[in-house]
Amino acid sequence: MRISEQLFPRPVVLITTVDKDGKSNVMTASFVMPVSFSPKYVAVAIAPSRYTFKNISEVKEFGVNVCSEEMLEMAKLCGSYSGREVDKFELANLEKESSVKIRAPLIKNSPISFECVVEEMKEFGDHWLVVGRVVREVVRKERFKPLLHKSGGTFPKLKID
Amino acid sequence: MRISEQLFPRPVVLITTVDKDGKSNVMTASFVMPVSFSPKYVAVAIAPSRYTFKNISEVKEFGVNVCSEEMLEMAKLCGSYSGREVDKFELANLEKESSVKIRAPLIKNSPISFECVVEEMKEFGDHWLVVGRVVREVVRKERFKPLLHKSGGTFPKLKID
Repeated sequence: MRISEQLFPRPVVLITTVDKDGKSNVMTASFVMPVSFSPKYVAVAIAPSRYTFKNISEVKEFGVNVCSEEMLEMAKLCGSYSGREVDKFELANLEKESSVKIRAPLIKNSPISFECVVEEMKEFGDHWLVVGRVVREVVRKERFKPLLHKSGGTFPKLKID
Repeated sequence: MRISEQLFPRPVVLITTVDKDGKSNVMTASFVMPVSFSPKYVAVAIAPSRYTFKNISEVKEFGVNVCSEEMLEMAKLCGSYSGREVDKFELANLEKESSVKIRAPLIKNSPISFECVVEEMKEFGDHWLVVGRVVREVVRKERFKPLLHKSGGTFPKLKID
């Protein structure tokens, strides 16, 4: 069994970054969790082959944009292509929103976005663990159904609460 | 909004540990995620006031025992008391199972358990991030409905798949 089928489901987020020249990218991730309440910290695991990894290595900041259930197709698209080849914001029809404290843009389609500054990056197995301190958050919607991932093409759904 | 209400739901696990004298403890956690597929790595955030934190600081190993939906009461009990005062295995009626590669016991009630060796511990805000390499896993049940947590007493449920 893959570990993604063992520790599931996980909330899906879109990680936004820029490279040193300011070119932005977006990537889908679900190896993500809160680390601290106050100040808020977020951890995310990123494979070093990802374009996002290159960006975060250059500019140690990232946006975490939480996906609602309606954002399934956007999340799938941003997980299926590389920012090396296509502009995924355009491809997935994502609306960019300017950040205030980091260079990467946020995603207006998300109910909640976090602006994060990297405090730690370290390799573990086939991923790098990246820990960011939340320096600003945008809450566009307090009540939403989060998009969840298990493994591969499986996105389990929550019961209505 | 608390960060636990923003990045949700998260799978609930029971973290098992021992202190340097071999006394075991169990704690509920949901700030947990996979970090790497191969080798498998798991990250968990633990508040330094927890007895489990003292144990992991002394003996750098821990068990991750995934909770199924039926384990809600066990998880609540193991999240509401301190191992300083009570034997939570007994209180929550958990069945211990011997580990093979670590000293902490596993929990037989769980569908899946991981034996982990600590490779990193670092403080971020009000928690410590602990990263463990999975050195052995026990899969007792491949199909199960995971117990999920949002915040406080809210445990959202998955739709039947």
